[in-house]
Order: sequence, then structure tokens, then C-alpha cells
Amino acid sequence: MKIDINSDMGEGFGRYTVADDAALMEVVSSVNVACGFHAGDPQIMASTVKTAKARGLGLGAHPGLPDLAGFGRRNMALSAAEMENILIYQLGALRAFGEAFGYPVTHISYHAAFGNMATADRALADVLTSAIKAVDKDLVVYSMPDTEVERSAQAAGLRTMQLFLADRAYRADGSLVPRGVPGAVLHSREDVATRVLRFIERGEVVTIDGETIPMRGRGILVHSDTPGSATLAKIVRETVEAAGVTVAPAYTFAD
Amino acid sequence: MKIDINSDMGEGFGRYTVADDAALMEVVSSVNVACGFHAGDPQIMASTVKTAKARGLGLGAHPGLPDLAGFGRRNMALSAAEMENILIYQLGALRAFGEAFGYPVTHISYHAAFGNMATADRALADVLTSAIKAVDKDLVVYSMPDTEVERSAQAAGLRTMQLFLADRAYRADGSLVPRGVPGAVLHSREDVATRVLRFIERGEVVTIDGETIPMRGRGILVHSDTPGSATLAKIVRETVEAAGVTVAPAYTFAD
Amino acid sequence: MKIDINSDMGEGFGRYTVADDAALMEVVSSVNVACGFHAGDPQIMASTVKTAKARGLGLGAHPGLPDLAGFGRRNMALSAAEMENILIYQLGALRAFGEAFGYPVTHISYHAAFGNMATADRALADVLTSAIKAVDKDLVVYSMPDTEVERSAQAAGLRTMQLFLADRAYRADGSLVPRGVPGAVLHSREDVATRVLRFIERGEVVTIDGETIPMRGRGILVHSDTPGSATLAKIVRETVEAAGVTVAPAYTFAD
Amino acid sequence: MKIDINSDMGEGFGRYTVADDAALMEVVSSVNVACGFHAGDPQIMASTVKTAKARGLGLGAHPGLPDLAGFGRRNMALSAAEMENILIYQLGALRAFGEAFGYPVTHISYHAAFGNMATADRALADVLTSAIKAVDKDLVVYSMPDTEVERSAQAAGLRTMQLFLADRAYRADGSLVPRGVPGAVLHSREDVATRVLRFIERGEVVTIDGETIPMRGRGILVHSDTPGSATLAKIVRETVEAAGVTVAPAYTFAD
Repeated sequence: MKIDINSDMGEGFGRYTVADDAALMEVVSSVNVACGFHAGDPQIMASTVKTAKARGLGLGAHPGLPDLAGFGRRNMALSAAEMENILIYQLGALRAFGEAFGYPVTHISYHAAFGNMATADRALADVLTSAIKAVDKDLVVYSMPDTEVERSAQAAGLRTMQLFLADRAYRADGSLVPRGVPGAVLHSREDVATRVLRFIERGEVVTIDGETIPMRGRGILVHSDTPGSATLAKIVRETVEAAGVTVAPAYTFAD
Repeated sequence: MKIDINSDMGEGFGRYTVADDAALMEVVSSVNVACGFHAGDPQIMASTVKTAKARGLGLGAHPGLPDLAGFGRRNMALSAAEMENILIYQLGALRAFGEAFGYPVTHISYHAAFGNMATADRALADVLTSAIKAVDKDLVVYSMPDTEVERSAQAAGLRTMQLFLADRAYRADGSLVPRGVPGAVLHSREDVATRVLRFIERGEVVTIDGETIPMRGRGILVHSDTPGSATLAKIVRETVEAAGVTVAPAYTFAD
Repeated sequence: MKIDINSDMGEGFGRYTVADDAALMEVVSSVNVACGFHAGDPQIMASTVKTAKARGLGLGAHPGLPDLAGFGRRNMALSAAEMENILIYQLGALRAFGEAFGYPVTHISYHAAFGNMATADRALADVLTSAIKAVDKDLVVYSMPDTEVERSAQAAGLRTMQLFLADRAYRADGSLVPRGVPGAVLHSREDVATRVLRFIERGEVVTIDGETIPMRGRGILVHSDTPGSATLAKIVRETVEAAGVTVAPAYTFAD
Repeated sequence: MKIDINSDMGEGFGRYTVADDAALMEVVSSVNVACGFHAGDPQIMASTVKTAKARGLGLGAHPGLPDLAGFGRRNMALSAAEMENILIYQLGALRAFGEAFGYPVTHISYHAAFGNMATADRALADVLTSAIKAVDKDLVVYSMPDTEVERSAQAAGLRTMQLFLADRAYRADGSLVPRGVPGAVLHSREDVATRVLRFIERGEVVTIDGETIPMRGRGILVHSDTPGSATLAKIVRETVEAAGVTVAPAYTFAD
């Protein structure tokens, strides 16, 4: 069995940075690379793709809304056609760095509000899925399980991978506890390790209310932009490997 | 023999437009599509690529400096690495629309200050040429003749095509008379037709000082953003066809 | 009695334009100047303020959402604090041109989605009103009548002016017929003149369903970005003046 | 005697930051606030002005080139008129926050490439000086000594203040050793303290070549975006105060 530990990378802009990308890229197996709309720029993308290649990491596009000031976290009233075109644009931009440096893009993972919009709207999800398929039918679509993004991609015959968030509390319906709520983010290393182990071994997570629910997935997303994220990623990786599971990019999974 | 009549297209942004793209795309054989930096956005790119496909036009990338406010016409002190990465980014963005819609990008043509920088600096031109070649070695590089852009592309084994500007006056050294100078832009339809014919039949142009100089090339660039550009393009096309020359995208030329 | 005929001006960007500002500024009494977020840039603002001064037009800020690609027409999930700060920023930018050129900003009029958000949300409207008052308590707030923008401004003791849209159809509740609906925009010069006259003389408008409703206001907004807007503005002005009403900026109204 | 210890503040964007502004604003006497072009945004500006007011710091505009990707450090071929207008725009934006929060902008300090262009070009410096004077003739102009910025401001009758850079090596002509050169940036706290003391007591600085040159000025600029900048600022302040000199904003200097 394999697990893909991945993180959002390249989310700086110009001289700005938000994460210790270098440290995280020593730990994860895949990177979701910002493509210049919510974050990222051509220099950072080039550098991130080069590092991903050097370390053999799964290379994925992480498209977002055109809102650098809001880091792609503010909903915008874009049409499905507008969403489709900004997805194609961003995906293509990253693919060209992959082509230039001889290292292909193999997955895609939506960012923040961009993803939230698709997660809740099957018609939109289908438009985006079609665009992905038209550009590269071999891309693996990363998403939370049981979302319209996943269902749409599967209906279209695309490979998918489900993400578990090691440091975020869940509700009984499998959704995340919103960030503002106390307990939404786990800070204890032991708690994170315990949760990862339960996720891997039993496919379960204990909700914020103490209920045990099934949690499907073979990807673990580590947030890059929280303090101590590299340390957290190490704990996740050590826990996964101690359980006898291989850490590898999703595109290498034999399905 | 074939001639490629081409024009810069998709140079609007959001609700802004600068040219009658629809009219021009009925006349030209190739389009140089703005990629979102000096002009253009994902919606306009999508629409332009669809029209190019519908009409069988040669589809080219037209990358520019990241300066929408200046329309890519103001020099910026970017490093060669920065130029390389913004080229890759923009080229990739357009290529993805080509992939999504099943119609490939087949050439590249630099915009304004981006092109001027490369035209005058062989080291920079070489960095850009290498990037183009790494992304797609079959792209045809459009440029003015006898520039570092052309020489660099040819040295790297890329196909090139030289552009003649039908409505701009030339100096004895083969360079353009700057826009501010009286006589720099030709407005008479007869003059344009006469020049085009001489260019095609004899490979010559008469300079602003009345001197006849050789003018090499098989492409004619029609400016899109001047009043009457569609009419001018028609005159160019009629002149070319009346001379028994086929109008077609450069990638179809047998070399 | 006085009427203020006004139009949104300076809504280009860089080399882009959307209206024949020069022609319109010969007809209107006030201008609502885009401030660089949904449209406009420092060069255009400078030029527009100079023309407004030269012609003695009422000078107003026309702040919008930070969305040039969407021309400020796409809703964005901004907080009230974010809205407040982008209002202050844009208002200040325009005021400085007024200060530099010796011609003060005397009113404010919200643009598109920015205005729609405030029109429907009294708490937001109040935050914005407070910011306006803190920056300049003498500014006249332009808005549609019976909106939260108007009520908020009046509650805070600011001067207000209500806008009538001469070329847009109304519904029975005093709101505009949305643009997509047939008949939403009036194109007949006679119809516009008739409506303007009825508005001035009787304070009434006939709705799209033929009902006559009261219509309060002493400002007429002429859309700048529709074909023939300058001609339409002339008809409006001639109708107003033929009725014996003076055309003048709202800040000159004696209340 | 008084000395103004100042630092460039508010140079983040959206969720990005580059300095520990909170720590620095406990130490400095004045802040040069980024105005949204090379860095900064309305939220950050609002927050920075509020803190400046709360702490009684001198509030200054820090306008830059419209190049967020390059942090305003890349030269751009802007005309004097373009420079003038982006100065007015940025200055006005900050002034409005000052007006909204009841705390006036009292000085201006150019950023990076914007300043370098004006420093070397008297005609440009004069255009900018005129714009500043037209907006607010009481603003103090901060600059390096013996630059066209200083001379232009003084010729126009504006108050000026000269900046000494405590952590940067100087050349014999009074210019800074470029950042790339070894020894260009001082890291030793003792060295910085020694230099500050010599500057205050004798009006001198020892160049990178060991030569002693006069150094005129009553302002000390502490770079905010280098590691340890808050600590460095504390050393500078302690040194200044230990010498019996008062730390205060330049606008309070009795000249």
C-alpha cells in the first residue's frame, strides 16, 4: 500500500513567501503548485518544479481564483465558463514548466474558494472536469472524499485520490470544522500521529464530537503555511512509514 | 510560394478591446495571441483559440512583459531568468487552450518591449530560444529579419519566419522608422498595395529616404489596433493573392 | 430648480477605453471618476480631473471592487472592513488629484457590485458612510432612491442626491429591470426624452408594466459605455433645459 | 537636538508580510508606509496608520513603482508624467487613511527604483517635487543627502530631512556600496552602534575603504526586511538616546 503525503507549495509571490517550502519538499511525496492567480509567479513556479524534479515528487497544479489580495479565499461570482478558462490557463502555465524542465505535471488539486465552489456544485465540477480531461486525461484529481469534485472526476473516468487532513478536526458528516471554531486545528504532535495511524490502519477518524466515522483516502494533505508545518509533515511521514506503508505520489499507485 | 498574413489578436482585457478581432480573423492566415501579461485574459484567449480553430488559422503565442498598464511597451529591468520564466508561463497558458480545444499552438511571436529586449541582446535571445525549444521544438519563431531573435532561433535549429510590416516605413539599415517620425506609418491603400507587391515579387522595400533595400521574409504583419486595420488586411491579402501567392500559416510552409 | 446630469468617466485602463469621455464631458454637469480598482489608472484620473476642472464639472469618486478583469461587476466576498478600506484608498487617490490640480472632489457614487452590496446591507452601508464622513463630511452621496446607501448617508447627516436612470426600465417597486430582460434598456430617443420630462415635471416614471410610480431625485445618470451615449446625454440635457431647469452639479444645490 | 529613526512599514500584501512591523513600530519614531504599488494594500495601510497614531509616530508615504512582482526594485521606463501621477495617487491613498483616522501624513520617502530614478534625474525630481507641493506643501521630504531629490525639494521651499543608513557601507562619494558587494551590509551590533554615534556626534562616517567622510542628516533609516531588524533598531535608538539626543519625527524638528 502507498500513501501520498502532499502539500501546497510555491504560494509566495515576488519576494513574499508563506512557507518553508525547502524544508517541506524534503518530506512530502507530492506538491500542489500555485499557478500565479491566488499566489505564485513564474519565478517561483520554475524553482518549485525544478526542486520537485530533483526530489522525484509528484507535480500537481493548484489553481485558484484570480485574487492575490485575498489569497484565493474570498468567493467571487465567476461563471462556470470563467472558472473553466482560468483553470485551463493556470494548468497550462504549470505544464509548460514541466515540459521545459522535462518533468510532467501528474495531478491537480483545487485551491480554497476555487475548490469550495466546485465541491458544492456538480455542474461546475463537470465543466472543470471536462477541461482537465481535454488538456490531459491522465491527470489524477485530488480532492476531499464524497465531494462533487470527486464524483465528477470519477464519472468522467479520471483517476482520483482522496485527501485526509491530518491536522484538521472533522464533523460527523465528514466535513471539516471551520477554522474559526475552537479545536478546528490540531496542534499536538501525538494527536496528529494517532489520527494518521487510525486513518491508515482502519480508514477511520474520530470527529470533534468523539464519534468515529469512516474516512476514505490515500492522500494526506499537510498545510504548508502554518507554523511548524515541516515538523508536522515529518511526524506524518514517520507515522506512515512506521506502519509499513510506502510514501509515494498518487500517479504511481497501481489501481 | 506561400505568404503568412498575421496579426496580434486577443489584446483586450476583461471588457476592454483594442481591435476588431472578428473582422481581422476573416482575413489573416495566422494569429499572435496575447497571453495575459501585456494584454489578454483567459476568457479572451479561449474565444480567440476557438475562432482560430474554426477558421483554420495558424495559432501563435504572443508573450509580453507583465505590464498591463503599459500594454507591454515600457521597458522593465527583468533578468534573463525572469524573461525566460514569463515566456514559459505565457506559452504554456496558451498551449493549454490549444490542447483543451484540440488545436495546437504552432508559432511564437514576441510582443513590443519583450521583443525589443530580445532583438538587441543575443544572450537573452538564446535563453528564450532554449526555453521555446524545450517546451516545443516544432514551434516556428516569427521575428523581424536580421535580428538576434532570428539568429538565435536558427542557431538552435528552430524554424523561423521573417515578418514584413506593410504599413510601416523602413530605414536604410532595415529597421523601422520610429512611430513619432512623420511618415513612419503608411495610410494610403495604394502605397501599401504597391509595397506588398514589391516585397513579394522582388524581395525589396523602398525606404523612407527613397533607397531600395532587400527585404527578406514570407510573413506580413498587419497591426490590429490601428483604425481601418481590417480593410488594410484585406488589401494586403488581395494583393498577395492577385500575385498568385497562397496565403497560409507558416507552419504549413514546406522548407 | 437644478438637475445634475452625470456619467461614469475614466473607466479605461492603460491604453484601453470604454467610452467617448471627451464628448460626454461636454454635456454632463458631473463626473463619477473610476479610481483604479474596477477601472481607471493614475494617468486617466489625472486627465479626467483636469478636464472636469476646465469645464467646471462636479468631481466625484466612483469606487469599485478590486476586479479589473470583471469591471467590478462580479460580487466578491469582502468583509465590511475590507470594503471600508478600499473605499478610503480609492477616495483618497482621487482627492489627491483634486488637491494637486486645485479642484476638489465634491461627491461620491459607488460602482456596480460595490454599490449593490451596500445598497442591500445597511450595516455595510453604515461602515462606508462613516468612512466617507471621516474623510470629508461635505461630500454628497449619489445613489438610487430608497436604498440603504441613501438612508445610511442621511442618517449620518451627509448630503445625498438620488439618481434617475433615463435609459433603463423600472419595475413597480422602483428597482431596475435587469439588463438581460427584453425592454430593460431604452434605445428610442423619443422615449428617453418623454421619460426625462415626466421625471422632472411630475416626479414619476412609467414602469415596464405600464404602471406609473413616483420617482424621487434630482440627478440623471447617463451610462457612458453604451453606443450613442453622448447623443443620449445631449437629448437628456436639451430636455431638461427646455423644461426650464438648470443643469448643475449637486454640490451647488441649495438645500 | 533630535533624530528621526524611521523604517519602511506595511510592505506586505494580502496575507504576505516581510517584516515584524509590530516590533519595529515600538522602536522607531517615523514610518514610511507602502501605498499599494510596490507593496502594501488598503487593509495593511489602515492597520499601519492606526498603529502609527496610537504610538505617535511620524506618518509618511512611501510610494513605489507599480511592480508588486518585483517589489518596486526593477527599473521601468515610465515617463515623468506617469511618475507624477502614480506619486499623487499613492500619496492621496495614504492621506485618506490619515484623514479617516484623524492622523495626518507628514512626510514622504521614495521607495527603491522610484527613488533611484528621481535621485539621478533633476527634471524628474522637480516634477515629483511640484506634485508633492501641490498636494501638501508642509510635507517633509526624506532622502539621501546630496541627491537631486533633496536639491529639488529645497529649491521648491519644501522641508527636507537627510537619511543615514546605519547598516549599510558607504563609498567615498557618499553613495552606498551596492548590496552584492562583500561588506555592503553591516551585521555587527557594535559596528552599527559605533557608526551611529560617530554620525550623531561628528557628522561623519567611515567608508568601506577606511576613509572618513562627512555625513549630513538627522534621520536614520533602519531596514525593516532584514533578519534582526527590530533588534538593530533598538541598538540604534539606545545609542542615539545615550548620546543625549531625542528621538522624534522630523516634522517636529524646529528648523
